[in-house]
Amino acid sequence: MIAPLRDFVGAFGRLLDSAPDEPRILREGGALLRTLVARDDWLPDAFARPDPARYQQFLLHADSTERFSVVSFVWGPGQATPIHDHTVWGLIGMLRGAEYSQGHVFDGDGRAQPQGEAVRLDVGDVEAVSPTVGDLHRVHNAHADRVSISIHVYGANIGAVRRHTYPAEGGRKPFVSGYSNTLLPNLWDRSEELRSTFA
Amino acid sequence: MIAPLRDFVGAFGRLLDSAPDEPRILREGGALLRTLVARDDWLPDAFARPDPARYQQFLLHADSTERFSVVSFVWGPGQATPIHDHTVWGLIGMLRGAEYSQGHVFDGDGRAQPQGEAVRLDVGDVEAVSPTVGDLHRVHNAHADRVSISIHVYGANIGAVRRHTYPAEGGRKPFVSGYSNTLLPNLWDRSEELRSTFA
Ligand SMILES: [Fe+3]
Ligand SMILES: [Fe+3]
Ligand SMILES: [Mg+2]
Repeated sequence: MIAPLRDFVGAFGRLLDSAPDEPRILREGGALLRTLVARDDWLPDAFARPDPARYQQFLLHADSTERFSVVSFVWGPGQATPIHDHTVWGLIGMLRGAEYSQGHVFDGDGRAQPQGEAVRLDVGDVEAVSPTVGDLHRVHNAHADRVSISIHVYGANIGAVRRHTYPAEGGRKPFVSGYSNTLLPNLWDRSEELRSTFA
Repeated sequence: MIAPLRDFVGAFGRLLDSAPDEPRILREGGALLRTLVARDDWLPDAFARPDPARYQQFLLHADSTERFSVVSFVWGPGQATPIHDHTVWGLIGMLRGAEYSQGHVFDGDGRAQPQGEAVRLDVGDVEAVSPTVGDLHRVHNAHADRVSISIHVYGANIGAVRRHTYPAEGGRKPFVSGYSNTLLPNLWDRSEELRSTFA
């Protein structure tokens, strides 16, 4: 039942074909993502499995020319990211459980400092990041005792983007996230439904 | 070492971005495919495995908006397709072993009949099909005692295209090929090479 993800990828590709500016990507792409995470019956188990050591980043789809990528983030109980940037637009939709995203800004010494309250994402919520709307944050599972999963879309092949983490002691470190998976789901087999229409 | 396939997918996507007509797709896309099958060090074993019962069609990549798909065809010893059409352009590049493609045309009774000699594809060779250049053929492994593998590119998500097979007794039957795999290779993780450039 992976059809909702296939439909999402196609619709996102057509949105980007129309050469939208970033506000439109975040608005219309955000609406597509909201539709995707409004139901939780399509993510195969292999891409929903936590790892006790670290949060998982399962690539679900990458566009042929790397205009966008779709990633399942699986948070084990209490797991968190370092403070990090993205350098491209990103959309985060909550599929299962809940997470907190704490925005950061640079202080006078170029050190990343928390700004405002952490945003809590519950099932169905969508948030955006980008160098324009705010690119620095730290994310953590809102639950200390269960798995949470968010679906992320980025304006690049995010696992291969050169970006940064910001350690507490100041400065920044080069960061390339990669992916947790060597195999992707096959979204594209519609043969069963099509054959069912044969006379 | 899946980089050659990733490079091929990106280059093919950029080619299609330029809105080429079919002759240019077959010419320039054919050149890209020739480069891809000029080396045989990139196809993961999971997508090179024959099945004793039938030839395998492993989807390697599908474009976000289904402009094209890339498929590994794995022929067990002596395996063959029925006579079939494609309804979209297709490019076939021989990666390992050899195959024969026998072109067909309709006779006065609308029956598919062999036309001309079968084309033999050896490693590195590339052939094209389409409703314009000839869309009907039957393919078989040139080897009765070993596996052959060809890499195919089509102007659609080929596994979901409504097409036809042509039985010996005449007429045609609806045909949707589907895919043999539920998991695709992850072409997109460049983190190892990128991290190796960190100071
Ligand atoms: Fe983030
Ligand atoms: Fe064919
Ligand atoms: Mg030859």
